[in-house]
Amino acid sequence: MEIKNLSKNELLSLKEELSAQYGAFKAQGLALDMSRGKPGKDQLDLSQPLLDELNSGSDIRCEGGTDCRNYGIVDGIPEAKRLFAQLFGLDTDEVLIGGNSSLNMMFDTIAQAMVSGVGGSEPWLKQGDVKFLCPAPGYDRHFAICEYFGIQMISVPMKETGPDMDVVERLAASDPSIKGIWCVPKYSNPQGITYSKETVQRFAALKPAAADFRIFWDNAYCVHQLFGEDEQLLNLINEAKKYGNEDRVYMYYSTSKITFPGAGVAGMAASKANLNEIKKRLTIQTIGHDKLNQLRHVRYLKDLEGLKAQMEKQAVILRPKFEAVLSILKSELGGTGIAYWTEPKGGYFVSVDVEQGTAKRVVQLCKEAGVVLTGAGATFPYGKDPLDRNIRIAPTFPPVSELETAMQLFCICAKLAAVEGYLGE
Amino acid sequence: MEIKNLSKNELLSLKEELSAQYGAFKAQGLALDMSRGKPGKDQLDLSQPLLDELNSGSDIRCEGGTDCRNYGIVDGIPEAKRLFAQLFGLDTDEVLIGGNSSLNMMFDTIAQAMVSGVGGSEPWLKQGDVKFLCPAPGYDRHFAICEYFGIQMISVPMKETGPDMDVVERLAASDPSIKGIWCVPKYSNPQGITYSKETVQRFAALKPAAADFRIFWDNAYCVHQLFGEDEQLLNLINEAKKYGNEDRVYMYYSTSKITFPGAGVAGMAASKANLNEIKKRLTIQTIGHDKLNQLRHVRYLKDLEGLKAQMEKQAVILRPKFEAVLSILKSELGGTGIAYWTEPKGGYFVSVDVEQGTAKRVVQLCKEAGVVLTGAGATFPYGKDPLDRNIRIAPTFPPVSELETAMQLFCICAKLAAVEGYLGE
Repeated sequence: MEIKNLSKNELLSLKEELSAQYGAFKAQGLALDMSRGKPGKDQLDLSQPLLDELNSGSDIRCEGGTDCRNYGIVDGIPEAKRLFAQLFGLDTDEVLIGGNSSLNMMFDTIAQAMVSGVGGSEPWLKQGDVKFLCPAPGYDRHFAICEYFGIQMISVPMKETGPDMDVVERLAASDPSIKGIWCVPKYSNPQGITYSKETVQRFAALKPAAADFRIFWDNAYCVHQLFGEDEQLLNLINEAKKYGNEDRVYMYYSTSKITFPGAGVAGMAASKANLNEIKKRLTIQTIGHDKLNQLRHVRYLKDLEGLKAQMEKQAVILRPKFEAVLSILKSELGGTGIAYWTEPKGGYFVSVDVEQGTAKRVVQLCKEAGVVLTGAGATFPYGKDPLDRNIRIAPTFPPVSELETAMQLFCICAKLAAVEGYLGE
Repeated sequence: MEIKNLSKNELLSLKEELSAQYGAFKAQGLALDMSRGKPGKDQLDLSQPLLDELNSGSDIRCEGGTDCRNYGIVDGIPEAKRLFAQLFGLDTDEVLIGGNSSLNMMFDTIAQAMVSGVGGSEPWLKQGDVKFLCPAPGYDRHFAICEYFGIQMISVPMKETGPDMDVVERLAASDPSIKGIWCVPKYSNPQGITYSKETVQRFAALKPAAADFRIFWDNAYCVHQLFGEDEQLLNLINEAKKYGNEDRVYMYYSTSKITFPGAGVAGMAASKANLNEIKKRLTIQTIGHDKLNQLRHVRYLKDLEGLKAQMEKQAVILRPKFEAVLSILKSELGGTGIAYWTEPKGGYFVSVDVEQGTAKRVVQLCKEAGVVLTGAGATFPYGKDPLDRNIRIAPTFPPVSELETAMQLFCICAKLAAVEGYLGE
């Protein structure tokens, strides 16, 4: 029976029961963190052999013979470019290798646009208002970049097929101060949605009012399927080529969630014109990124097949965690009418919509009982969820047993907050 | 006898002789590169054991217990901050660890100033003209950053004590659009000059017209003495504290020329107020730099003593190279009156002033005979040496025997170009 249909007395009695359960959890003195999409220790241990790839006896030359210990090669060693090209489904000359963080590459791309413009445009900072479309719920660190640069964010609703393209097309076409859009097109953060073929095609054919409009395609989870079957995502750059729109896209990726988040290799893909523009900055910004770490990674992962084999090992670790989250959500909240959640086939998150107006309260209750969740609202621009209902569950970091405890608590808190709401408290 | 005092016939005969020598070199089909301050293979081999510091059996936790493989710690692991604090002669909370490139940290600091201002100021990009003081000859990559951002460069003459502080003080005080100055204060690039005590004190007490004026103190060669005795440089931040001016300084350093240029660790030091401002950007720009490489480096170098021991090994390799350059310059060009050079006690370069108006020609002649030098003019803003006389010699990369050949050729070219000039050709 849905909770909202209970009588006042029934609600009061349910509240008492939930409060007792909550108190019991609180008494356990938990200290669990489900706030970030952070790999667990077991996932990191998977890549431990990576550290043996380079030792004092190793050949430290990359293909072409360059000594990777020395200065040089600003856009990445050949074998790293080849691996990332395979991953992006593009040519090596459409790829550029960075440092350890794709977020850093995205930030720098926007910083460059602010200071120097894009494709010959005026610097965004000199153009007056700059706005970005932000499919929401989305990734809080994307939104934080916009906020940092004073870029106004406009929320775009997410559908099961990706961002609402009617809204994207209408807004992009209507306002030349709208300069871009953030996308996590596969196993999206936080909902785990993979953009449909039609969505990608509409992105490829987009007709924005701003000539310097760019699609930031953060393909962070492109090989992160969890349950064997891999959802298919169209290649946006190749689709965009059909319309001559390939300059409208920047793609990003890193091995943070393949090997080590703290010491991986990041890369981006774009048209040659875009990469030339980026490289003009890059050759001034640095003499080159860490080539030894690039070498270490390629020797360990080898090629796309090796990388996929590694991801299957990751999936074996993550699958039970996602199953635990989904199974507890179903058993504890199924049929209560107070929560709806996604059942992602990959990625790093489960997105839960609790009763409207209670997300902040749920996160607060969990925190007081020792379980830290991603802040309520974090998945929306400016940290403001208009319906105060979305919560991002990050199941990867805690061991399964802790995760189960945390999810039991979460469900109690979700119900408790809903009951409080129905009681008008 | 000075060449300029030769008669025309003597000049013609000397030219014939030099041309013959030049031709003989050209016939050798040399292919030598002395263009950049790039460590040689023997220097890189010194740090090969660094690669054994982390393997699959290693403890990958830093002090405080954080797993360095995972996300987190945006400003550097504690032991890396401690090592850099020792190096900078400052406290750990005045230090921030970056990626592999201090140039990248400098670029990003300026990018931040352009977009967000400094110390609460208007973004530089919105303030109209922005100018920098550029002691010259100086480091071409500093100048390239200014050019990239459209920052106007004003040359300041270098004296034996560092930049001409009369000029620096006068210009900085006179024009609020002058926002900063580039300094390589110890074993400067390219002259190998260490700023005197008085110079540093005058920098510490500087009264620029712009409140958001910053001194970019690129201490790239702070432990790079070559001949045992270490020239002493006053600590600018500590000096500036005496005047309440500590917010006016950014210091930079990296291990590029201690371990591996392509895979080292960079850091910066600044006042807490400045670091807080930098960290506001950094926490948006990245989740953290490569902590495993930080760990690897600290375990290898250990502490300041370990680092200095490593530098002594570097000096053993570099000393004969600098001695070869200086000895050939002396024997071939001494007394000719056509060239003057520095005799640095550390750093990476020897700066040679050839006869006025001939630097480009000398570099061209060397290139045609297979020896690549740093481009003439590169040591000046906009690549324009007003007297066309300064050439930066980078002795580190080639083996001694090749270096000797290259220097013999260089001296012939310097004389040939001077003779051509005297003959009015």
